[in-house]
Amino acid sequence: MKIAVFGTGIVGQVMANRLAGLGHSVTIGTREVAKTLARTDKDPYGNAPFGEWYKLNKNLIKLDTYSEAAASAEIIFNCTMGQGSVEALKQAGNANLKGKIIVDISNPLDFSKGMPPFLSPGNTDSLGELIQRTFPDVKVVKTLNTMNCYLMVNPAALPGDHNVFVSGNDVSSKTMAKEILKSFGWKESNIIDLGDITTARGTEQLLPIWIRLYGALQNPMFNFKIVVGTPPKM
Amino acid sequence: MKIAVFGTGIVGQVMANRLAGLGHSVTIGTREVAKTLARTDKDPYGNAPFGEWYKLNKNLIKLDTYSEAAASAEIIFNCTMGQGSVEALKQAGNANLKGKIIVDISNPLDFSKGMPPFLSPGNTDSLGELIQRTFPDVKVVKTLNTMNCYLMVNPAALPGDHNVFVSGNDVSSKTMAKEILKSFGWKESNIIDLGDITTARGTEQLLPIWIRLYGALQNPMFNFKIVVGTPPKM
Repeated sequence: MKIAVFGTGIVGQVMANRLAGLGHSVTIGTREVAKTLARTDKDPYGNAPFGEWYKLNKNLIKLDTYSEAAASAEIIFNCTMGQGSVEALKQAGNANLKGKIIVDISNPLDFSKGMPPFLSPGNTDSLGELIQRTFPDVKVVKTLNTMNCYLMVNPAALPGDHNVFVSGNDVSSKTMAKEILKSFGWKESNIIDLGDITTARGTEQLLPIWIRLYGALQNPMFNFKIVVGTPPKM
Repeated sequence: MKIAVFGTGIVGQVMANRLAGLGHSVTIGTREVAKTLARTDKDPYGNAPFGEWYKLNKNLIKLDTYSEAAASAEIIFNCTMGQGSVEALKQAGNANLKGKIIVDISNPLDFSKGMPPFLSPGNTDSLGELIQRTFPDVKVVKTLNTMNCYLMVNPAALPGDHNVFVSGNDVSSKTMAKEILKSFGWKESNIIDLGDITTARGTEQLLPIWIRLYGALQNPMFNFKIVVGTPPKM
């Protein structure tokens, strides 16, 4: 498929690489191509500037503006920082987004008051819903936002079973997203469909404990597994 | 130990029963004893009125006002509805709470705007912190609030390993709470100490996905397991 990956950070890089490796035609979208390539600073995690990574991957992955990347794509992966996601999608333009699936894997983390960040949409909204409301002609599927990007694309990196969640209003778009998850290695039985896009409030609000578990475990390679038992007799 | 259990709902009943069964001297605290015993309505889950349950358990468990229950206790389990927890503790009185451990297992769920409820403290606070701030002379340990009450007191009801989280500022109070968890059947390796009481934001914000998982699974008997792998090479 033709896939646009919005975001040039580590999440976008890992996602673009994995999708291209699976044979998809991948274009990374960014605000200004020349500026993105000219960056010389490492990211907050110490990763090399985008341009260095891109030199190694440009035979496999294209780089273009948000609007050009969206125009040519069937599916858009939103891997931008959550605080900038709506603006990035606005730059893509409604006409280029219309009718398409947006797989939203970002989280609306607000770092403006220091660490740990908090969720900017508050307790009665989510970024997934905000994107769906702002772009009513797209089909938002929220998924993968509850784990490290290396796990997103390679669940076998952890031992045994663990879960990924899916939220969205359009059933066939969720089915499409689940197929991509399965191509990453996710077992169907480990994909939990929570329901419509309002359930993104549930997965985004996992971030506060994710951040604190990262602190307690000193290791970002972990995920949530839902262990289910027999219902009680009522 | 002498333990007060605040709250006469199903969570308080299950907790009081388990603690009494382990040999503790348990007093349930309530606002007005006579009114609590006179209730004839079933709870929202269809459980019998408190008085009926209490008839079967009064040889083992005492019932008294919040203040009397707290006065005689070494540890207080807060099993009230989160929206009423601070008021219940205020009725207990500072003098009766001073220096004691409050094991806070409640969640600040606001049902005033219908289902599903949302978290009333917002994204930059938690009920655990609110209780600690309001009663600076107590030692709040937030734990067990991320699961069904039957699982809280009997983790073996689910197959294999799954986790319980602990948050609190006072290390020795957390050690005491962990001992009680172990007496319920929690393996030490399944107890995750997240850090100080601000980490209660993490566990309370698990409730939005808990509620949606309950909807998706149609079964309240589930819990979170944190599956941990090898850290990536940076």
